[in-house]
Amino acid sequence: MYIIDFEPIGLRIPCMKGDTVFNAAGKAGIPIISYCGGKMICGRCKIRIINGNVSAISTNEKNLLSEEEIANNYRLACTMRVLSDLKVEIPPESLETIQQLQLLGKEPQLSLDPVITKYKIKLQESSLENPLADWENLQKFLKDKYGFKNLRPDITLLQNLSSNLRNKNGEYSAIIRDDEVIGITKSAEDFHGISIDIGTTKLAVYLVEIHSGQTIAIKGAMNPQIAYGEDVMSRISYAMENGVDQLRNCLLNTLNQLIQELTGNPEKVVDVTIVGNTAMHHLFIGLPVIQLGRAPYSPVVVQSLDVKARELGLNVAQGAYIHLLPNVAGFIGADHVAMLLATEIYKTSKNTIGIDIGTNTEVALSVNGDIASLSCASGPAFEGAGIKHGMRASNGAIEEVNIKNNKIDFKVIGDIPPTGICGSGILDAISQLRQQKIIDQRGRLQDHDLVSKKKSGREFILASKKNSEIEKDIVVTQHDINEIQLAKAAICAGINILLQEYGINEEEIEKVVIAGAFGTRINVENAIKIGLFPSIPLNRFTQVGNAAGVGAKLALISKEYRSIAGDIASRVRYVELTTHPKFTREFSHALQFP
Amino acid sequence: MYIIDFEPIGLRIPCMKGDTVFNAAGKAGIPIISYCGGKMICGRCKIRIINGNVSAISTNEKNLLSEEEIANNYRLACTMRVLSDLKVEIPPESLETIQQLQLLGKEPQLSLDPVITKYKIKLQESSLENPLADWENLQKFLKDKYGFKNLRPDITLLQNLSSNLRNKNGEYSAIIRDDEVIGITKSAEDFHGISIDIGTTKLAVYLVEIHSGQTIAIKGAMNPQIAYGEDVMSRISYAMENGVDQLRNCLLNTLNQLIQELTGNPEKVVDVTIVGNTAMHHLFIGLPVIQLGRAPYSPVVVQSLDVKARELGLNVAQGAYIHLLPNVAGFIGADHVAMLLATEIYKTSKNTIGIDIGTNTEVALSVNGDIASLSCASGPAFEGAGIKHGMRASNGAIEEVNIKNNKIDFKVIGDIPPTGICGSGILDAISQLRQQKIIDQRGRLQDHDLVSKKKSGREFILASKKNSEIEKDIVVTQHDINEIQLAKAAICAGINILLQEYGINEEEIEKVVIAGAFGTRINVENAIKIGLFPSIPLNRFTQVGNAAGVGAKLALISKEYRSIAGDIASRVRYVELTTHPKFTREFSHALQFP
Repeated sequence: MYIIDFEPIGLRIPCMKGDTVFNAAGKAGIPIISYCGGKMICGRCKIRIINGNVSAISTNEKNLLSEEEIANNYRLACTMRVLSDLKVEIPPESLETIQQLQLLGKEPQLSLDPVITKYKIKLQESSLENPLADWENLQKFLKDKYGFKNLRPDITLLQNLSSNLRNKNGEYSAIIRDDEVIGITKSAEDFHGISIDIGTTKLAVYLVEIHSGQTIAIKGAMNPQIAYGEDVMSRISYAMENGVDQLRNCLLNTLNQLIQELTGNPEKVVDVTIVGNTAMHHLFIGLPVIQLGRAPYSPVVVQSLDVKARELGLNVAQGAYIHLLPNVAGFIGADHVAMLLATEIYKTSKNTIGIDIGTNTEVALSVNGDIASLSCASGPAFEGAGIKHGMRASNGAIEEVNIKNNKIDFKVIGDIPPTGICGSGILDAISQLRQQKIIDQRGRLQDHDLVSKKKSGREFILASKKNSEIEKDIVVTQHDINEIQLAKAAICAGINILLQEYGINEEEIEKVVIAGAFGTRINVENAIKIGLFPSIPLNRFTQVGNAAGVGAKLALISKEYRSIAGDIASRVRYVELTTHPKFTREFSHALQFP
Repeated sequence: MYIIDFEPIGLRIPCMKGDTVFNAAGKAGIPIISYCGGKMICGRCKIRIINGNVSAISTNEKNLLSEEEIANNYRLACTMRVLSDLKVEIPPESLETIQQLQLLGKEPQLSLDPVITKYKIKLQESSLENPLADWENLQKFLKDKYGFKNLRPDITLLQNLSSNLRNKNGEYSAIIRDDEVIGITKSAEDFHGISIDIGTTKLAVYLVEIHSGQTIAIKGAMNPQIAYGEDVMSRISYAMENGVDQLRNCLLNTLNQLIQELTGNPEKVVDVTIVGNTAMHHLFIGLPVIQLGRAPYSPVVVQSLDVKARELGLNVAQGAYIHLLPNVAGFIGADHVAMLLATEIYKTSKNTIGIDIGTNTEVALSVNGDIASLSCASGPAFEGAGIKHGMRASNGAIEEVNIKNNKIDFKVIGDIPPTGICGSGILDAISQLRQQKIIDQRGRLQDHDLVSKKKSGREFILASKKNSEIEKDIVVTQHDINEIQLAKAAICAGINILLQEYGINEEEIEKVVIAGAFGTRINVENAIKIGLFPSIPLNRFTQVGNAAGVGAKLALISKEYRSIAGDIASRVRYVELTTHPKFTREFSHALQFP
């Protein structure tokens, strides 16, 4: 599953297993899955066009849809292209179910046991003969009818209780969390939760129907903290000088805006789970991060936390809590725990590597059920940052590159002239350049027709000015190559050190799970060729998309998963990479291309 | 005990058992007690004058103080008069102790078991070899050293934890409440709690040393909500039209100011208990009060509540909670529960009446351990409001009146020419007027030398213009008399209805406990003579001052008392007075004077 968050006009609505679609206005995201892997043969990804332009109806659609459906503007998501802002209706049968949300071959056994439950209420009226305080009246009903003992009220519940209980319009339900009544709502009202993945670069917010466990909308955005530094370390530096308030507030504002857009009415959101790396976790709560920036990189807290959302300024239902999943260490956060949860690495007996590629890349190795994890400062190069013509994976980005006999083939998102290169494109390009020996083992651009020499260094022309949307050549510079070398060397060194910790070699790795948005778009073969991933058979690799977000969602709809996340966090053995005796050697070695 | 809260310049510092003194600037209040009842013979009310002017040293003081003490400006509080703003030091031996705070002959067996406790900490430093998150480090220490399991952190604790743990200046302690660490403080730092009694007319705030249970300062102020209505019903009306925010905010601001003045540093206050009538309780939390204003007068909640002080906007330590004692019903609030707690009526086997006289007067009757309570709308007349020359019991108020053979004797607070009459003065005056037959049984002023006839009705001249501080006669009007009749009739009817509920008569009442500031100043004999109190021997009456405030304090320093308060609230049988079938008859009857 990945998130397309920026006007995917012209892009085919993806409906690969676990894919996520958005309407082009970005107002709501709806996950749909097909069972045929996008081959346009199963007809399961039915949607109805409400307004907006899409490509003409195809033969496949005519075969797979009924005449009535076609008359009613039903289409198959996988077969059409979006040509304008688009509003679509997703019939319930096309929405992914909980099992389908899981991105691995084997899906977790999910018992739907959310922390939040809802109970219909019908209270006796208070009278002079039998005077009852409103709360005690409610408490008594919930005890007599449902067996709840020792319930306590949220303070904001009390503030609205009297008017809610006296409102005769419709049936009401009490919303209960553990021993606390956190709200009263109309029984017919939607009952939603939100899961949030706070990435260093990207934010992903999932709107989930609590009673069914279905994800009904997803929304993504850039992390606005980027304005204060692109990677975790530069944000920590910023916080050291300026405190955490600005970093916290801009993040909070964006999250509140995303929730408002996703839900229309944030009051419907009665529970929230959050994952992120430890620094993002700390900044979200307003914890200091200074001590994360220097050895021994101590977090303030690693255990899971339950805090009233209003205490942290997140605008959802007044009585709602936020559950922050547990961290492991200063540079292994709750997002990693959530990834291990969603991918089920926590219970595999196979030798498995889990990699979540981002601005910081976390790597876990599970050997015989024992898990060790470390964090590599891979930087934002794979997200297109720090690269001359780098850009996010949105319209106009070169996402695939093939170079053969001096002929360059590339694929641009949106099938339009390119404006830049995204992470997967730059990785492909460098891998192809290396295979063509246009760059040597140490990463230096060689003399070549397409290599020009500028004052600032050599550049490889990927798309000439006339083929590009911008008024110049789109190039891969010597500096770009070095940035990618640094990034891949950090990850590669991390993997090798973990293998050495357990005394196993590459060949013994039975499975590699690649998580993260970039990890999903990556061409694994090219990644192996530049030495980013171990050189093992391709069929041992799985690309799972935003597993951290899925883990956050699992914790939203299941008490059991919250508890498992706690177990994972305390089980994972943290390996400190920067001070590891073998790091420098491994890193220097990994800087080279195979 | 009562509170003198307005510049008692010229006033003798009271040191009767349970009295409270303030410096004249009103900056801090210090309770002192003597053991001789103010007879200037025990020498226990020693204080040291820091600056300000007081009357010259007396013979008693010369006998009771050592030469060294006199040289060091020690004085006996009971013997001197304050002549200017005054700053005094109260030596610990002069401060009342917990037992002495109790205002009844028999004091409660108090086990000092506060909800908040403090534990010295000394943590292992985190290192690269043994990296520890700060919270987990603290948690482990508290578990290993003190046996605490499953502790959880307050979110604001986490926000300051890292800097506190890394501060090497002095020893630190963790402040723990149940399973929550609510703060870290220097071990040497004071460790205070606050108890608040929110009266309809007056606020009283007690600063208590939690580890010793000592009240170290008390401060009072008018309830600023008076601007929106003098009694509970008029504030409810105001809230119906304008919402509760204004009422809540002005109260909160005044309380925050009082706490700031009392403590100098509100951050030292780690626990708070609050009592008040149900409407004050609701307005403090921001609960609606509309439903309290109409039958069946349902409160939103009666059970005790524990809420983070910061959630309610009370400025104390970041992690501190407020414990709101439980209410009984719409017009029997936590202040009544606290009164029953402090006076020990809850465990007496004697037939006992407890009366807390205020703008609303609550009456409890305990018969064989069964307690029934009701509330009478007595109005603010006894507090001097609604009376032509009524005023608070402060300097210049006539507080005692004697009339014999057309000669009027009165005592003025501060021994200065009078500016008005306070509650006890008006009660005395009316009682004396009735005894002199200057008013008849129905309360009508008769023809008399000192009765003048004005357009607005008759008036009795209590102090002539030339004897008063104001430029006119100080009078008791026909209207004043009628106001007092209404007030005393409400209370008297309440008492009679309770007696009838249990089928006992006046003579069977073994004890009457009179609480409240006015109740302490009242002349019981005169009160009996106007029919306010049952006509039983004087020695069955006890005047205990602000028992509600004492109850709040007991709950602050003892878990057991919190639990007893909960038991009391659920045991007390509420009797609805206004709709009681016998109320009208009893009330009409009680309007007459005996």
